[in-house]
Amino acid sequence: MDFPDRRVLQVAISSQVWVHEMTDNKVELKKGLRDVYIDKSESSFIDGKAGKLLYRGYNIDDLAEQSSFEETGYLVIHGSLPTSEELSVFDADLKVSRAIPEGVLEIIRQTKNAHPMDVLRTAVSALAAFDPDTGDDSVEATIRKGVRITAQAPTVVAAHARIREGKDVVAPDRDLSHAGNFLYMLFGERPDPEDVDLIDRDFVLHAEHGLNASAFTARVAASTRADLHAAITAGVAALKGPIHGGAAEGVMKMAAEIGSEDNVESYVKDLRRNGKPVMGFGHPVYKAIDPRSVHLREGARLLSERKGRPQWFAVLEALIKVMEPYARKGVHPNVDFWSGAVYSLLEIPDDLFISIFAIGRIPGWTSQVLEQYAANYLIRPRLLYIGPMDAKYVPIEQRA
Amino acid sequence: MDFPDRRVLQVAISSQVWVHEMTDNKVELKKGLRDVYIDKSESSFIDGKAGKLLYRGYNIDDLAEQSSFEETGYLVIHGSLPTSEELSVFDADLKVSRAIPEGVLEIIRQTKNAHPMDVLRTAVSALAAFDPDTGDDSVEATIRKGVRITAQAPTVVAAHARIREGKDVVAPDRDLSHAGNFLYMLFGERPDPEDVDLIDRDFVLHAEHGLNASAFTARVAASTRADLHAAITAGVAALKGPIHGGAAEGVMKMAAEIGSEDNVESYVKDLRRNGKPVMGFGHPVYKAIDPRSVHLREGARLLSERKGRPQWFAVLEALIKVMEPYARKGVHPNVDFWSGAVYSLLEIPDDLFISIFAIGRIPGWTSQVLEQYAANYLIRPRLLYIGPMDAKYVPIEQRA
Repeated sequence: MDFPDRRVLQVAISSQVWVHEMTDNKVELKKGLRDVYIDKSESSFIDGKAGKLLYRGYNIDDLAEQSSFEETGYLVIHGSLPTSEELSVFDADLKVSRAIPEGVLEIIRQTKNAHPMDVLRTAVSALAAFDPDTGDDSVEATIRKGVRITAQAPTVVAAHARIREGKDVVAPDRDLSHAGNFLYMLFGERPDPEDVDLIDRDFVLHAEHGLNASAFTARVAASTRADLHAAITAGVAALKGPIHGGAAEGVMKMAAEIGSEDNVESYVKDLRRNGKPVMGFGHPVYKAIDPRSVHLREGARLLSERKGRPQWFAVLEALIKVMEPYARKGVHPNVDFWSGAVYSLLEIPDDLFISIFAIGRIPGWTSQVLEQYAANYLIRPRLLYIGPMDAKYVPIEQRA
Repeated sequence: MDFPDRRVLQVAISSQVWVHEMTDNKVELKKGLRDVYIDKSESSFIDGKAGKLLYRGYNIDDLAEQSSFEETGYLVIHGSLPTSEELSVFDADLKVSRAIPEGVLEIIRQTKNAHPMDVLRTAVSALAAFDPDTGDDSVEATIRKGVRITAQAPTVVAAHARIREGKDVVAPDRDLSHAGNFLYMLFGERPDPEDVDLIDRDFVLHAEHGLNASAFTARVAASTRADLHAAITAGVAALKGPIHGGAAEGVMKMAAEIGSEDNVESYVKDLRRNGKPVMGFGHPVYKAIDPRSVHLREGARLLSERKGRPQWFAVLEALIKVMEPYARKGVHPNVDFWSGAVYSLLEIPDDLFISIFAIGRIPGWTSQVLEQYAANYLIRPRLLYIGPMDAKYVPIEQRA
């Protein structure tokens, strides 16, 4: 790491330790890399000002309303919408890949008391040990692995949720869709078709989202030519961070604290007064509405009625109304707002919410890793050293 | 993701699909982020032109010749050289943390046929499930976790190496140093003190190295406030990539192919003629000699004699001599050159070499994650979308 653009001022701090300081502004720190473009991509297009999201050119509004997770997963991984025949092959591949090896079930048992994201990360990492394509990093093999991990992730999450509660693991059912089978493996009962539609739509809404921190983590790992299991393990690792994946959990906790529509206004005022964020609002990229945030609203309303809890929907609606003045400042409901509501109304445990996000995102990570492989550069930025220079090593017996 | 600086030319490709093209150069792609400084750091200083490396201000030459891995690990994690008392506390913490939970041993058994880096990644991820500090991401807890992972990683690598060969796992021995205990757990015999010195020195040489791809992966994961186990799992995932961690394995394969000093010149000529790299030479950062590459040379010579294989050393020396003309172009032996030789002469299986690199690097990853936490920005760069715009969604039954 040479520093061609800087002058270094060396300052004696003591006889032993030297510090250098930056004396010009030519070294610009790009903390967060916010405006730095690292590569081209065809996976998704996000226009934060317009509140627009495309997967592979297709508007999220169309995909959420008309597509399925299986079709959208094919689109994100392969780059085009499938024909009926292509979709049925893809769906069949997903279905035969759902079961996880006994060795991975044993790993879930051994780690059952951990956070579900720790278990998912460990299980995805371990699946490399059982995947027939491990060692083959061709495009074709990477796609096969991506399809397999997409199929296996819901099984991992559902198996862990049951094992930690002392319940039997439910084997996947090939008669059910990806979303339907997930709910079936989680609850052990044939799922309500309307619940399935909501989770399917939720998976579609999470399938890909540009260069967020988890996708970037996966790409950096892939830039060393690490394989897809390594890259997705790294992506899951990053997604665990509360700054990235954590808001859905907070939404219904907040709704429960509010309790009734009448309390919304004072609750929000209290939060603002204490400088605290309102969960499920605002997004680092979207300054207009998060286009993913609207497609679960009507479903959440119907679900809250079916579940006999219409007051929850009423509280959330009142919250949106109270938050309207902040829309001018770019604070809108985000994807976590209604996702969190739907998960809660379906009685999915809070600590599984991020794992459900991860299940949906696997096609996007796969697509971006393939892009990274296709035009690879090792991603290796720099750090500006500001510590002591040329400190004198004193053997331990002579140290103060 | 808004694009304030660009003009978009929309071109009709068909009635359904639009492509936009970049029509100005204002969006600059920073592939690889090669010259982008993302933050300040006090962990290490690298001057690639001078061939200089400092950990926390201390020259690698002093540390390699006079320090130990325990002392250097303390330095890298805590930022200053320890007093005798601080070192003995740190060493005691490492020693009591070496044993790994039975659950993690079981996970290693379940994944025993995988690549050692897949097993290490899975085991580090799983250790989160057993760590008493999981859930506490304070500086103090993160340091405790870093010390524990540093202590546990050699046990994971050695246990896996024995389990896959059908041998009993060797429990750690508190009478031995970090390096000595690793060799003991790996081979099941009290290690030769000269072998221990070489591995200790090798660990010192790998303890920290700026913002390489694995450290960067760990930092990106940490930038979401993911915990240390998540971040180091992501770092291990990236280190598996052959572009990053893979050269040591190749050095002795190459030496074995060469066979004798007399063949070195023609072997190198053949490689150059075919445009192939000479393993263990060249580095993306060092254009002068890699300062880590000199400290194992004399030890490798003595080791090759002790092991009755002096011809290996002779071949490697001849290789350096034949490569001398390339030094003007910045191609010098790198750290992998003599590390690979030492591991091979110690009869460590080839596929463990990257894991040994990882064992050494854990203090560096820990230090950089602590730096990331201390002045955190979510690391979220951008991708330039070049795919189709506003493609029309056609229901599947109407698709061609």
